[in-house]
Amino acid sequence: MNQDTLWIKQLKFNEQGLIPAIAQDERDGAVLMMAWMNRESIQRTVETGEAHYWSRSRRQWHKGATSGHIQKVKRLLYDCDADTLLLEIEQVGDTACHTGARSCFFNVVPLKQLTLL
Amino acid sequence: MNQDTLWIKQLKFNEQGLIPAIAQDERDGAVLMMAWMNRESIQRTVETGEAHYWSRSRRQWHKGATSGHIQKVKRLLYDCDADTLLLEIEQVGDTACHTGARSCFFNVVPLKQLTLL
Repeated sequence: MNQDTLWIKQLKFNEQGLIPAIAQDERDGAVLMMAWMNRESIQRTVETGEAHYWSRSRRQWHKGATSGHIQKVKRLLYDCDADTLLLEIEQVGDTACHTGARSCFFNVVPLKQLTLL
Repeated sequence: MNQDTLWIKQLKFNEQGLIPAIAQDERDGAVLMMAWMNRESIQRTVETGEAHYWSRSRRQWHKGATSGHIQKVKRLLYDCDADTLLLEIEQVGDTACHTGARSCFFNVVPLKQLTLL
């Protein structure tokens, strides 16, 4: 066991062997997307410095491999429960979402709906 | 069906009826925590304007009810896949984590470990 892998041992994966990963723009803190990683995604991310995710449809997935919109990982953090990752990234192309949007979080619940519900 | 609840119908909950919710400080964009919501958490959050979450240990959980560190929701967004929520909040007490830290994401993987792995 390499000492450098000890932090990965602390992570808590869910029943499917996955852990959520939040990608945040290192420049202004914008939350760009949330996706899932398994151990291999983390290993590949750490080895390449570029975000890799896992999904049922795409399996192991190098973000931006097709679109060119790769994510260069500047800082990698995990939370107090060690069950969520936070990636501070440089988003190449300034486009994280497959729709072409900068961020996947473009659906705003109107305040009216918040107060009237 | 009230028109104002239609957006909730679009959300995709997991097999446990849960959806991940990222809490972000509205002031500076800091990601403070990630927790889970079920439909009732969302309803309560929307009705009160304060974040409610669900966990296996705490069940339905009004964030800050004990500590006073409630989260006032300023904006509520969901992502392109409608399977993750983003809450832009005012964090009362400037403390989101149960450890007393401002953010739950205080574990930084040292860059050395990133490059050597």
